[in-house]
Amino acid sequence: MKAVGFKTSLPITSTESFIDFETEKPRPTGKDLLVKIKAIAVNPVDYKIRQNAAKDTTLAEPKIIGWDACGVVEAVGNEVSLFKVGDEVYYAGDITRPGCNAEYQLIDERIVGKKPKSLSDEAAAAMPLTSLTAWEILFDRIRISKEKDKNKTVLILAGAGGVGSIAIQLAKKIAGLNVIATASRAESVDWCRKMGADVVVNHKNLVEEVREAGFQYVDFILDFVDVNSYWDAMAELIKPQGHIASITGSATPVALNKLKTKSASFSWEFMYTRSSFQTDDMIEQHRILNEIADLLDDEILVHTLTDTLEGLSAENLKKAHAQLESGTTIGKLAIKY
Amino acid sequence: MKAVGFKTSLPITSTESFIDFETEKPRPTGKDLLVKIKAIAVNPVDYKIRQNAAKDTTLAEPKIIGWDACGVVEAVGNEVSLFKVGDEVYYAGDITRPGCNAEYQLIDERIVGKKPKSLSDEAAAAMPLTSLTAWEILFDRIRISKEKDKNKTVLILAGAGGVGSIAIQLAKKIAGLNVIATASRAESVDWCRKMGADVVVNHKNLVEEVREAGFQYVDFILDFVDVNSYWDAMAELIKPQGHIASITGSATPVALNKLKTKSASFSWEFMYTRSSFQTDDMIEQHRILNEIADLLDDEILVHTLTDTLEGLSAENLKKAHAQLESGTTIGKLAIKY
Repeated sequence: MKAVGFKTSLPITSTESFIDFETEKPRPTGKDLLVKIKAIAVNPVDYKIRQNAAKDTTLAEPKIIGWDACGVVEAVGNEVSLFKVGDEVYYAGDITRPGCNAEYQLIDERIVGKKPKSLSDEAAAAMPLTSLTAWEILFDRIRISKEKDKNKTVLILAGAGGVGSIAIQLAKKIAGLNVIATASRAESVDWCRKMGADVVVNHKNLVEEVREAGFQYVDFILDFVDVNSYWDAMAELIKPQGHIASITGSATPVALNKLKTKSASFSWEFMYTRSSFQTDDMIEQHRILNEIADLLDDEILVHTLTDTLEGLSAENLKKAHAQLESGTTIGKLAIKY
Repeated sequence: MKAVGFKTSLPITSTESFIDFETEKPRPTGKDLLVKIKAIAVNPVDYKIRQNAAKDTTLAEPKIIGWDACGVVEAVGNEVSLFKVGDEVYYAGDITRPGCNAEYQLIDERIVGKKPKSLSDEAAAAMPLTSLTAWEILFDRIRISKEKDKNKTVLILAGAGGVGSIAIQLAKKIAGLNVIATASRAESVDWCRKMGADVVVNHKNLVEEVREAGFQYVDFILDFVDVNSYWDAMAELIKPQGHIASITGSATPVALNKLKTKSASFSWEFMYTRSSFQTDDMIEQHRILNEIADLLDDEILVHTLTDTLEGLSAENLKKAHAQLESGTTIGKLAIKY
């Protein structure tokens, strides 16, 4: 089968940052599905792995990355019970295994959902990773209760990005929260409002911006930018008994004590925790993806795809990564095979 | 009225670390109750405030501290609706106001509960601060669900202390969790088992001790010792998607990133957040104290009082603080007036 990968971590502008190659089509065993991929999407985790997985070394075989995908089940392992050959599926994969930048991929059925029927392949491919991340951060990490927390306020840092775009929708339409999103460019501000944000503020002078918008404190903060850069502002803005959650990591230690008198909480969300640790509840991602598919088909949620490239190739992967690395992407970027 | 207080922060062995004095009996207004105090209990927060509130200075009037109390309502403010004169009550107070080391005290009715009928005054006085802390950490901070989290495992650091003793009971009997507690001395180990701990381990070599007891990971950790000292061990032991919570504070920044790949959460619990910030839900402490009273009267929970001194005096307060500062107290220490 055709695939795209890399042998060395290189800047995206290098000729060899991605290479086209041929490799053997895998065979499914156990709970695995063999999926013939029809479209994929790119995410920041892709370029972080590309930049770091083969630093100062050359791999014997090219590494296949990429995690968001949509396709058709072509064969199943002997323990598969949730899907059958011919089913259309979408998923965000497992970073411990070969990715979706290829014609075919093996994927554990417990982290796969039925493709939203109303969406194109490329729009469906744009949704799994960000939807799982946003769903888990709201409902599994913060444990937002649709009853108990209704009408509370969430501040979403980087509302126009991939995760931000679906997090705004889930926070507003499913959790019933008031949503403040951050965005700085005019088109990002418009996009956040389109996704359902009640208020959009600039991330510069965050505390002042949020206070000027009429909020002394916010109940929840979702950080999709950087924990270290925003720690003091988040500690200032979080409401007593509030909850901050982030997907970004923190390069340096954090003054956790700033949250103490407020009895505030902090959660990390890493969408690959369930598959990496093979948690007992990893099938929850199957359930979430199916629920997201229903919400998309019922037009309660809208897809967040904004741009599509045509064809699986090193050239297109390079274009996609370069775009993402610019940090200005609104919504999601997909590649249709 | 008679009261005990201090004008300067001094070691507990100093003559003036506590002084007896007379002051005016206060009058209730608004939502305040005037309570004639019958017994009090001491907590680590008491000596932390005594040691720090008047460092290198001398206050004009002695500062009255102390937070756990049991007594009888003697008068009420004009907005009081939950209690009437003659009601027996117990409460953990509000650190922004004068404390209970006195004959009378004003207290906002929203943070007061009915005294457990079956308990002596001194046993009742021993319960509010630790019960509120343990309840809030389990059900308001971690948001443990009696249905969703049943049979999960909690590790409680310092199980034999005041908060540990009631946290073991609430975790076991109300939340339905498996409880591992830490204790090092033989009498502390026995006490933890009496409180309901399933397993007791030594806090030295914590990771090895917990693993040898048969637990690779634990779902929840309650730290009642020190976040900084136990951070690495807690990060190692916490289960993917688990939740750590603490009441201790952290003197230095924390390597929060160690929890990231596990999507783990961290919460502070500070029992005075609701009253300090006058949160919209501060009446929740009234509700929790009433529920704890019912659980004690129904013999589902047992009180944690282990020692009682007789009489409000500087001498007894000195004895009580000296005992607490030793760090070896099992359960709770009260003073009966």
